[in-house]
Amino acid sequence: MKTRDRILDVSLDLFNSEGEAKQTAVDIANALDMSPGNLYYHFKGKEPIIEALFDRFEEEMQIILGGSHGAVTSIEDNWVFVYIVLEEIYDFRFFYRNVGDMMERYPALASRFRKVLAMKRQAIENVISQLEKRDLIELDRRLRAPLVQQMLSTLTFWLSHDLIEGSDRDGPTLIHDTVLQFMLLAVPYMGDAGDEALGGMLERHRALSDA
Amino acid sequence: MKTRDRILDVSLDLFNSEGEAKQTAVDIANALDMSPGNLYYHFKGKEPIIEALFDRFEEEMQIILGGSHGAVTSIEDNWVFVYIVLEEIYDFRFFYRNVGDMMERYPALASRFRKVLAMKRQAIENVISQLEKRDLIELDRRLRAPLVQQMLSTLTFWLSHDLIEGSDRDGPTLIHDTVLQFMLLAVPYMGDAGDEALGGMLERHRALSDA
Repeated sequence: MKTRDRILDVSLDLFNSEGEAKQTAVDIANALDMSPGNLYYHFKGKEPIIEALFDRFEEEMQIILGGSHGAVTSIEDNWVFVYIVLEEIYDFRFFYRNVGDMMERYPALASRFRKVLAMKRQAIENVISQLEKRDLIELDRRLRAPLVQQMLSTLTFWLSHDLIEGSDRDGPTLIHDTVLQFMLLAVPYMGDAGDEALGGMLERHRALSDA
Repeated sequence: MKTRDRILDVSLDLFNSEGEAKQTAVDIANALDMSPGNLYYHFKGKEPIIEALFDRFEEEMQIILGGSHGAVTSIEDNWVFVYIVLEEIYDFRFFYRNVGDMMERYPALASRFRKVLAMKRQAIENVISQLEKRDLIELDRRLRAPLVQQMLSTLTFWLSHDLIEGSDRDGPTLIHDTVLQFMLLAVPYMGDAGDEALGGMLERHRALSDA
């Protein structure tokens, strides 16, 4: 394993578990059992490490969100898709716990974060279009943008909301709960099939949470 | 006007316009045209000022949210109610821009913020119950908690979401847009009346935004 990759892996773990704001380059070097000078040889401080981690995150999100075009043909597919997106965000959760704060402290990240947000929005639009095309949902066109906004907000603030409520759920539970929360947003637009779909979603959520 | 009140008013303006994180007690004294020593006589630093501002915010929220019990009997009442809540939050918006960050830096605020969150949740529950009792909405009981969660999240993260998107709307526009976003969450549960209600909401939003 390359030293550069090891630095990024350990930094990511450290930021996720201890919060990024309080960590210094020296803390990172200590966690790596490495001299600050050696760390400096690879990264000139904390900010380039954060930017390199964002590179990774962005790349993963591009692969996941770009892959959704045309692939989502059922509610089940959608469930899996949302699960994968949330899992990826969870892997880089330190970016999401205090998004606004991160963007203020690292202005270079702000426009890149907005790009990821726009990708998420586009993926949600695609999914809704696919579900409409297959008559799985029927949506008044005036309710479409607000629904997209609500879904996007859920995908963006689920970690902050959990943090604020102090609910202390573990990662997998929080992810499963959030997939359910996201999917339930579509139920009112499923017409007569909504009742059965709702039952199916709750059952799936129970089964996955118990697993 | 008492000096104490003037200090709080000016601090609130400063935090709202410039962000709280970067302001020091000396910045606050400068904005007040007051010596740091005189400021210190009234408040022993920035943290007690923030706590006193939270006292104000909490008191206002208690009055607004406590007043909703039984009072909301129509969609129009609900609109006004949500508008008042958002306006109050907007007055103290520096608390909401980076909620998680504020809670981490001022742990004393965390439990108090959770109390406000619980009050908001209770007010939403009450409103939904009232609307159900009057047959204005019909909600599968399994969708109730997720709807409450979605409404609560909207009331909590509207400012963060706007910040992240960098949409740069002015305060009144953002408030009107958010009331609409909140109210639209109820439309799918209005049955046959939903279509007309939706038209009414969009018209009301347009009229208020143009005013």
